[in-house]
Amino acid sequence: MSEFDLIASYFTWESPNKGSSPHDSIQDNSILENSAQDNSSLNRTSQIIKNVGDDAAVLSLGVEQQLVTSIDTLVSGVHFPEDTKPADIGHKALAVNLSDLAAMGAKPEWFTLALTLPEINHKWLQEFSRGLKTLADEAGIALVGGDTTSGPLTISIQVMGSVENGKALYRNGANQGDKIYVTGTLGDGAAGLASLKAKLDLKSDHLFFCQKRLNRPTPRFNESYLLKDYASACIDISDGLLQDLSHILKQSNLSNPELLVGAQVDLSSIPLSKALQSINYQQALEFALSGGDDYELLFTIPQDKETEFLKSVNSSSNVLKDSLTNDAIFKCIGTITPEEGIIDSYNNPLNPKGFNHFS
Amino acid sequence: MSEFDLIASYFTWESPNKGSSPHDSIQDNSILENSAQDNSSLNRTSQIIKNVGDDAAVLSLGVEQQLVTSIDTLVSGVHFPEDTKPADIGHKALAVNLSDLAAMGAKPEWFTLALTLPEINHKWLQEFSRGLKTLADEAGIALVGGDTTSGPLTISIQVMGSVENGKALYRNGANQGDKIYVTGTLGDGAAGLASLKAKLDLKSDHLFFCQKRLNRPTPRFNESYLLKDYASACIDISDGLLQDLSHILKQSNLSNPELLVGAQVDLSSIPLSKALQSINYQQALEFALSGGDDYELLFTIPQDKETEFLKSVNSSSNVLKDSLTNDAIFKCIGTITPEEGIIDSYNNPLNPKGFNHFS
Repeated sequence: MSEFDLIASYFTWESPNKGSSPHDSIQDNSILENSAQDNSSLNRTSQIIKNVGDDAAVLSLGVEQQLVTSIDTLVSGVHFPEDTKPADIGHKALAVNLSDLAAMGAKPEWFTLALTLPEINHKWLQEFSRGLKTLADEAGIALVGGDTTSGPLTISIQVMGSVENGKALYRNGANQGDKIYVTGTLGDGAAGLASLKAKLDLKSDHLFFCQKRLNRPTPRFNESYLLKDYASACIDISDGLLQDLSHILKQSNLSNPELLVGAQVDLSSIPLSKALQSINYQQALEFALSGGDDYELLFTIPQDKETEFLKSVNSSSNVLKDSLTNDAIFKCIGTITPEEGIIDSYNNPLNPKGFNHFS
Repeated sequence: MSEFDLIASYFTWESPNKGSSPHDSIQDNSILENSAQDNSSLNRTSQIIKNVGDDAAVLSLGVEQQLVTSIDTLVSGVHFPEDTKPADIGHKALAVNLSDLAAMGAKPEWFTLALTLPEINHKWLQEFSRGLKTLADEAGIALVGGDTTSGPLTISIQVMGSVENGKALYRNGANQGDKIYVTGTLGDGAAGLASLKAKLDLKSDHLFFCQKRLNRPTPRFNESYLLKDYASACIDISDGLLQDLSHILKQSNLSNPELLVGAQVDLSSIPLSKALQSINYQQALEFALSGGDDYELLFTIPQDKETEFLKSVNSSSNVLKDSLTNDAIFKCIGTITPEEGIIDSYNNPLNPKGFNHFS
């Protein structure tokens, strides 16, 4: 099987919402026709002009839109245990990237896949492709190109999203007095990994939950739509709450040197799942603060927008509850302070020690 | 050293032509100001709104432009010998991607880098970064994001380019009677690889030339600007002339089922470097037809546009000659025929046997 056959067999999907099959190109005049119908070029949305099957993909952004793009690599044995199910790998490789788009307030549009495989294993490819496609369909993101090559199992995905001009959410906008929020529950993925490594003993239902959280993180693109009009800064938690919070503080301080910001975090407000509530509290807190692999959103809401934000949250019942835990999805965990560093409610310093690939 | 320090040390470059340092964002009103100055939003060109240092990059395409994007992975020991110089790896990883943009007739704009490293080796990183940056500056392409992780040495680069709406060059437009052209000379990279594997004995100056062609391929973005207004189909030669020509034929036949196209190639016209002219002719031809790793452009020119194309070539003295060989850069090697398959001037079939990663 050649690499061309491989792409044709496993990665040539119909993307009905995005138009265009791999060998078709939407004729240029279809764009003109759309514009004519709308009678306003401002209504033009993003389109795939040329999909997989050429040297590159050709894509058209809507008028008044900016491109938001991010790349993330998953290496077998580093980012996931070697015996991880291929469908979970497919899901996670896309999920961690969609999480970056969510953190930017961007709408998922297209992605490319660079897949390095030690061998052609049809069952593996079928399952991997299924896990990837299921999440891609859910997020409304289309695969528009890729590359397959032989070597140690490595998956690089580059996602591309769109955002209205000037509406992207950055890490650098946190301001004194802003409220600090997170989505979902924290530390579950880290607990799942610890249990896989036999460093943590969990009851079977909690074990299942934490490993699902590890292998099938939920990118918060729906929640992102809701918070993006109110948040002053946003990041996704991949390296651990404290480390990612320190990124927000550092970037905010860099971009506004006249204003010093730090954070006070109320540890008792950190959202913990039933699984983490069932273990030693100190250990649970360690997973939640520094475990990483959460892919939840961490964001700040200016005080004067909080009421409006919460009103908007309460009127959007579909994203109010976590689908797995039925818990409230947005939780306030602290406040941006005018002092450097991160402290708890008793003014004790909290030291960021997130995951470092090269430590 | 953390992955954040690593990116800051080696991949935070000033990109004067593209604006924006990593921690700056071009203020939204600067775009408005530009528009106001130009007094026409049509003059707005592509811009980096947010560079490395957030969850994703934010990019703005010019009005009436489409995004052209491609991803390619280089694995150590597969795409380059393990003892390849890091600066050469940096050059090649970007060059093969720029070659895809050139094949689409796209202007290089931005790229992201996913780098998987077995260890932190500062000398290696410094050299790799230098090789990458030198070519990036030459091509006018800016690094806007990336990811570093630990694992077997793997480099994935995704390039993004721009093209005026509807002006991208595809593989599928070849038509009966079109002339077949290539840039540069073919087979040099394959000869360089064979000499590295001690399967070919070359004189030292030829050895140096062929290994340079293998490790430092020249992406033909300047040549692409010249041919894009005339070509009916284009591809870059990465898998070998015959295999890539068969891609053009296959895609052209798929997109226009009423018209059958094949190709006649005049083997005596295949451009061979002095190095390849110095070895056995059959072996040289084998390298040129099926060796791969050329990163030259293969394109078709409709008969009625050939005179105009050649006139344009002759008036552009700066891309007329290959910088290494001083040879003419564009060479006609054959014609698109109305019969299936590829034949030589004596009607003998030529069988595409390009490089297949999984054969």
